[in-house]
Amino acid sequence: MDKNLILNKVLEAKKASRQLALLSAQAKNNILSAMAQALKQNKKEILFYNEIDIEAAKESKVLPSLIDRLLLTDERIDNMIEGLEKLISIEDPIGSQADELSPSADIKVQKIRVPVGVIAMIYEARPNVSVDAASLCLKSGNAVILKGGSEAMNSNKNLIRIIYEAGLKAGLPKGAIQFIDTTDREAINELLKFDELIDLIIPRGSNELVNFIRKNSLIPVLSHGKGLCHLYIDKSADIEMARKIAINSKCQRPGVCNAIETLLVDKDIAKDFLPVICNDFAERGVIIKGDEITRNFVPQIKIEEAVEEDWSSEYHDLIISIKVVESLSDAINHINKYGSKHTDAIVCQDQIAADRFLAEVDSAAVMVNASTRLHDGGVFGLGGEIGISTQKLHARGAMGIKELTTTKYIVRGNGAVRQ
Amino acid sequence: MDKNLILNKVLEAKKASRQLALLSAQAKNNILSAMAQALKQNKKEILFYNEIDIEAAKESKVLPSLIDRLLLTDERIDNMIEGLEKLISIEDPIGSQADELSPSADIKVQKIRVPVGVIAMIYEARPNVSVDAASLCLKSGNAVILKGGSEAMNSNKNLIRIIYEAGLKAGLPKGAIQFIDTTDREAINELLKFDELIDLIIPRGSNELVNFIRKNSLIPVLSHGKGLCHLYIDKSADIEMARKIAINSKCQRPGVCNAIETLLVDKDIAKDFLPVICNDFAERGVIIKGDEITRNFVPQIKIEEAVEEDWSSEYHDLIISIKVVESLSDAINHINKYGSKHTDAIVCQDQIAADRFLAEVDSAAVMVNASTRLHDGGVFGLGGEIGISTQKLHARGAMGIKELTTTKYIVRGNGAVRQ
Repeated sequence: MDKNLILNKVLEAKKASRQLALLSAQAKNNILSAMAQALKQNKKEILFYNEIDIEAAKESKVLPSLIDRLLLTDERIDNMIEGLEKLISIEDPIGSQADELSPSADIKVQKIRVPVGVIAMIYEARPNVSVDAASLCLKSGNAVILKGGSEAMNSNKNLIRIIYEAGLKAGLPKGAIQFIDTTDREAINELLKFDELIDLIIPRGSNELVNFIRKNSLIPVLSHGKGLCHLYIDKSADIEMARKIAINSKCQRPGVCNAIETLLVDKDIAKDFLPVICNDFAERGVIIKGDEITRNFVPQIKIEEAVEEDWSSEYHDLIISIKVVESLSDAINHINKYGSKHTDAIVCQDQIAADRFLAEVDSAAVMVNASTRLHDGGVFGLGGEIGISTQKLHARGAMGIKELTTTKYIVRGNGAVRQ
Repeated sequence: MDKNLILNKVLEAKKASRQLALLSAQAKNNILSAMAQALKQNKKEILFYNEIDIEAAKESKVLPSLIDRLLLTDERIDNMIEGLEKLISIEDPIGSQADELSPSADIKVQKIRVPVGVIAMIYEARPNVSVDAASLCLKSGNAVILKGGSEAMNSNKNLIRIIYEAGLKAGLPKGAIQFIDTTDREAINELLKFDELIDLIIPRGSNELVNFIRKNSLIPVLSHGKGLCHLYIDKSADIEMARKIAINSKCQRPGVCNAIETLLVDKDIAKDFLPVICNDFAERGVIIKGDEITRNFVPQIKIEEAVEEDWSSEYHDLIISIKVVESLSDAINHINKYGSKHTDAIVCQDQIAADRFLAEVDSAAVMVNASTRLHDGGVFGLGGEIGISTQKLHARGAMGIKELTTTKYIVRGNGAVRQ
């Protein structure tokens, strides 16, 4: 790995960031439009390079789930194009007012949104993240340095070349999108050195990757961490609604961060709810782990014993742990103790229970009578999603383009001074 | 230093933070009002304990400027009381809407402001920071752990005891304000260990203190860093206005972060402006350092030679460096290269120059025809100020109570699931 090459890319990005900050909304939309057009025109080439990655992955016998994440299809390319088109329709956050102020001195003060500057994005597996990250950073006026996973190297390199070249022709500043085309992990350590040039690092991948970067970076990190989500069925719940939400939260896509790992059931509804939901899960091939009360309520279905460790396990799979709780307070305490402050939901008809749950559960998203799977930037109307932040500072929960901005105070006086 | 004692204080703060998050605006204002009342009633005691610190400082022959920072007077206590009263009049940020969203699924989504949780504040010298920090954290629903400078130990301990006890009687949750009453610096290392319990650290003091904490903390840090501020006099400037702003920016309080260190003067106005401003500075005892052109323009006044190091020096004193620049672009490049991205101002009558300066200077606050000394939470109408952040993430520039909050997505459905 050539260290100078990485430094040059970072310097180029820094230079481009100053020009990007001054682009109009129209100019940025024209570039996004040219990128979408280029993806449309180069589908064959995109699929060709993706095939190289897929073949290599198959040869090294990686898990089928990883191959699925790597795979690009005609439909998945269309989704990327749709993502770009959606982003064009979203209002430009740059220059918009972030807060209203009433200054005491004889001055006008505005707090406006400006780009962060240079953002490094470190991610794994899915090639569409390259296009999503590059376009979200562009719309928010930031230069971006992309470091994707080695298994998607050919797909990423090709995708970025296509959108970058199309962007340049449409007015994208030179150097605004950088791709680190080495599989050497040392490149990450190299990037972490440039805390004077890179304004923000977004790691999106395994817990190990995220923690490594948090511990070794002086550059601010927006981490996309663990998703240990809960669904609590209150005694006032509508049982049919509870079934529908529990099944969706667990089974619709079990490998992602906003799927649930633990189901909490109020003791007063357990007798009616547990047999039906356990049957639903068993029918869908979900491995069920339950506390003693759960196992006693449903003797007819195979339920493994849930041990202490289960309450803090993110299975990322068709496995669920079930616990019967004494009360709403008991459920809230369990969630605040074992959860990862990501997404937690209650099913209930009782408005007071709903309000207490929303106020007292300390998570990025709290929900009433809705599936945890709905915690998503696209669903929330953010015009895309660069990740779901599990930290409290700067951005919490689903992050769209506004979360890729910072603010600036603009002060205008006519000779105003401090008394 | 008893390590268990520190852990206990952190655990108590964490417990209190859950209750604080649920307090109404009225309840918090009642507590603030009781605190203001208690300060009024205990002025003699406050001055008595402050006198102990002042005597000790005089004995150890510290700088007069430090003694001035330590000193409490009747008027300074009144200022703290006024600060509390002003905070009562400010709208409670908790529960307010942080963004408007248009979700695509059949759900309602709100993004509301919630407290961060537990905030540790590490500061030096001025005892009023104890009351400011405790009250700003309370108004924003956060528990706070205060670690002040050893030289103000008696003043801080007494002030916090007074407001805490008055607060408790008015409904403040037990443990909501913690004071680390040791002068052992090891206590800071101890605090930094609790990244699972403390949500945010705000260091306010020397660059060494801030950098030590940034490097050794996994807890997010909001740093209040270096203030290397510039004033640029454009060729279109009104000379009388430029004098007034330059004098105020440099001389009104030279030891603080928003005073200027460097004056940049356009070559086309240098001949008219430099002789008068250098005379103004000389009259006020300011040591002037200038580049060669400046020295040539003002032979009659003693100007030291400015060397490369001067452009990146924060003097914190009545010293100024002056440079003549070729153009507005030259000024912007100098500021973006040498500045600390804190506060920079232009004096000009030309609207196009103003707009370019505001757009292209990458600082927390950029100003036109106003003194850099006006960058202040109180002046901007934030209802107080916990510091001026020099970082870009979460909070940038003057920080008020909104900057001590995070957000939470509240989602309400009626059986909504992900398709």
